[in-house]
Amino acid sequence: MKFRIERVEGGICAVGGVRAYGVKEGKNGLAIVAGDLEENASAAGVFTANKVKAAPVKLTQARIEKCGRLAAIVANSGCANAFTGKEGLKNAELMAELVARRLGIPEEEVGVASTGVIGKQLDMRLIERQIKEVSEKLTSNAEGSVAAARAIMTTDTFPKETAIRIYDGESELRIGGIAKGAGMIFPHLATMLAFVWTDARLHKRELKDCLKSAVDRSFNMIVVDGDMSTNDMVLLVATGVKEASVEAFQQGLNYVCETLAKMIARDGEGATKFVEVHVRGAASYEDARTAARAVVRSPLVKSSIHGESPNFGRIVAAVGAAGVELDESRISIALEDISGVFGSVKLVSNGSPTVDVDHARRVMQTRELRIVVDLGVGAYEATAWGCDLSPEYVRLNL
Amino acid sequence: MKFRIERVEGGICAVGGVRAYGVKEGKNGLAIVAGDLEENASAAGVFTANKVKAAPVKLTQARIEKCGRLAAIVANSGCANAFTGKEGLKNAELMAELVARRLGIPEEEVGVASTGVIGKQLDMRLIERQIKEVSEKLTSNAEGSVAAARAIMTTDTFPKETAIRIYDGESELRIGGIAKGAGMIFPHLATMLAFVWTDARLHKRELKDCLKSAVDRSFNMIVVDGDMSTNDMVLLVATGVKEASVEAFQQGLNYVCETLAKMIARDGEGATKFVEVHVRGAASYEDARTAARAVVRSPLVKSSIHGESPNFGRIVAAVGAAGVELDESRISIALEDISGVFGSVKLVSNGSPTVDVDHARRVMQTRELRIVVDLGVGAYEATAWGCDLSPEYVRLNL
Repeated sequence: MKFRIERVEGGICAVGGVRAYGVKEGKNGLAIVAGDLEENASAAGVFTANKVKAAPVKLTQARIEKCGRLAAIVANSGCANAFTGKEGLKNAELMAELVARRLGIPEEEVGVASTGVIGKQLDMRLIERQIKEVSEKLTSNAEGSVAAARAIMTTDTFPKETAIRIYDGESELRIGGIAKGAGMIFPHLATMLAFVWTDARLHKRELKDCLKSAVDRSFNMIVVDGDMSTNDMVLLVATGVKEASVEAFQQGLNYVCETLAKMIARDGEGATKFVEVHVRGAASYEDARTAARAVVRSPLVKSSIHGESPNFGRIVAAVGAAGVELDESRISIALEDISGVFGSVKLVSNGSPTVDVDHARRVMQTRELRIVVDLGVGAYEATAWGCDLSPEYVRLNL
Repeated sequence: MKFRIERVEGGICAVGGVRAYGVKEGKNGLAIVAGDLEENASAAGVFTANKVKAAPVKLTQARIEKCGRLAAIVANSGCANAFTGKEGLKNAELMAELVARRLGIPEEEVGVASTGVIGKQLDMRLIERQIKEVSEKLTSNAEGSVAAARAIMTTDTFPKETAIRIYDGESELRIGGIAKGAGMIFPHLATMLAFVWTDARLHKRELKDCLKSAVDRSFNMIVVDGDMSTNDMVLLVATGVKEASVEAFQQGLNYVCETLAKMIARDGEGATKFVEVHVRGAASYEDARTAARAVVRSPLVKSSIHGESPNFGRIVAAVGAAGVELDESRISIALEDISGVFGSVKLVSNGSPTVDVDHARRVMQTRELRIVVDLGVGAYEATAWGCDLSPEYVRLNL
């Protein structure tokens, strides 16, 4: 089957029947995304692996497992509703109940997400007022998606949304999403949220498999399970309107998740540069993933990227410390300007430094850097994304 | 058996028969430590787990395994001799050979260590000249230990040495050591070196067990195996002069290793505060270690310590992300000023925030902070050490 993937405008509202909106007052924002569901609608979620799970994570995870569909998601920023005990759980339930009542949908079909300070109870009077305002302004226009994306921002510097259509010459599927990012420095403890909507009709189990596969190669390449925040979640809702080929849907979903994940990496706290690390020549896919994440996470590598210093020794050490199989005499490392302006340069060829320092420094002046590492032992590859480490990161987190 | 452990002056030269010295020219330093060995002398080492091992690591590891004793250690700073292929190995051998010839000892009884830039060959003319100078000035006076400790410094801001005597009322053992630190931010990719000498007589296998046990609770609580640099090593030489109780020796060695490890943590790159994290109430010793290291490593916790902000949410999230067993409703967290001046304050008691923010801020003004976390599920405990994260860290590593 042949199909084309094309970007379209409108963010999450590019999907038929989806309405969204959001408001923000100081640090406290609230967004609602709602969509008309067909009988065959389904929903899937991927949740933080943190042992301390926020109340909204517990609630939404349980609801998706139980009823397998979501008619609406309500998300607030400013307060994570994490480490808040029974009162926190009651408040998360109340958020869902308020939205369900306003929208006239079953309470168990409302998902809840939160991001912000840990260990503080929600201000439910504020939440109630914001739910009233946002639910009255829900719109299927593009502005609704932007407003929702903006409402869930914390230290993000720009709202994150994307949408595509998957076209096979006759009919089209749509997938749209919004996301918020976080301090991208490992261990990643700020909150990553992403909500993705599609008009595709897919069985609950298929949907979950597709989401897991897409998250593994996108959000999990900037954030590792074991180090997620108390509140991380990625939710995928399929409204069930259109028949879908799983293969086409998976490719489209991969594209949407990768796009949102890269936006989060690009907007890491204090970031001045975007970094893509591509590892190839690995003995296994797991090794390639591990090595790529190790390089993109290393504070020493990140610091030298900030300083525009072509320090290949730090890259070698990060890969070595990752514990993956490698051949020291066959490692190759190259730097590339993703935008193409400053070209590319080899730092190491088959284990020997080949640094043209002047050229390497020029390539590192780019704001979009790709590091390519060949481990020299196999045929597997993987890509991870991140950003540089600037003094601003520390200032943001004092 | 009763014994007392007392600090003594002299660093590594506090041990009978040990001579040391070092020189430093700009970034390039060289130190030699040498000691008279009895017939029953032994040596043990713990080496980096990095898959890319520096030439001196390969050489010294092989020699200790083969002949089980070291008459001298030569260490240079400025060039790590890592990722340097066959030429690197040849140069490491040559360093040992030059020292052996100067001191009239067997070549295979010389250990080699290096720290500095990765991927660069040693300047052997410089090394040869420095070996000549240092070997002529070796001394058993305290100044020899300081000179050696100073010669192996890289980004360290002070030389690190310590010595003790273990006294049972009749005879005494001595243990002395020097160390150098590194960027203490995880993943730890700069080099940690420590050389410890004792006049005790212990079997090679006993010595190795003692060293492993001491390193696990000291250097490994600031540096984790899988994330060590290409050059990390801890060497322990027993000259074999005095009979020793293994129990007394182990306690003394723990003390020396912990003292040197804390010095390294205190001198982390850009550090302005020293942090001790004590985890108790854990379900296992492994859990306690994992949780303590997770907290001490978290960039968000470290940033908030730098900002003197009592952010218990970040501590909870770091512990949760570590994947250890815990009871959210029984977690307790306290802050203590190690020096005692600013007192101590509870942040969380049995799962509930109890923050007296003003008091907590006062406690955090200390330069020596202890974070105590009770996981509320068991009886195991462990301690880890680190420092705050300051913008200066990034500047040092540009």
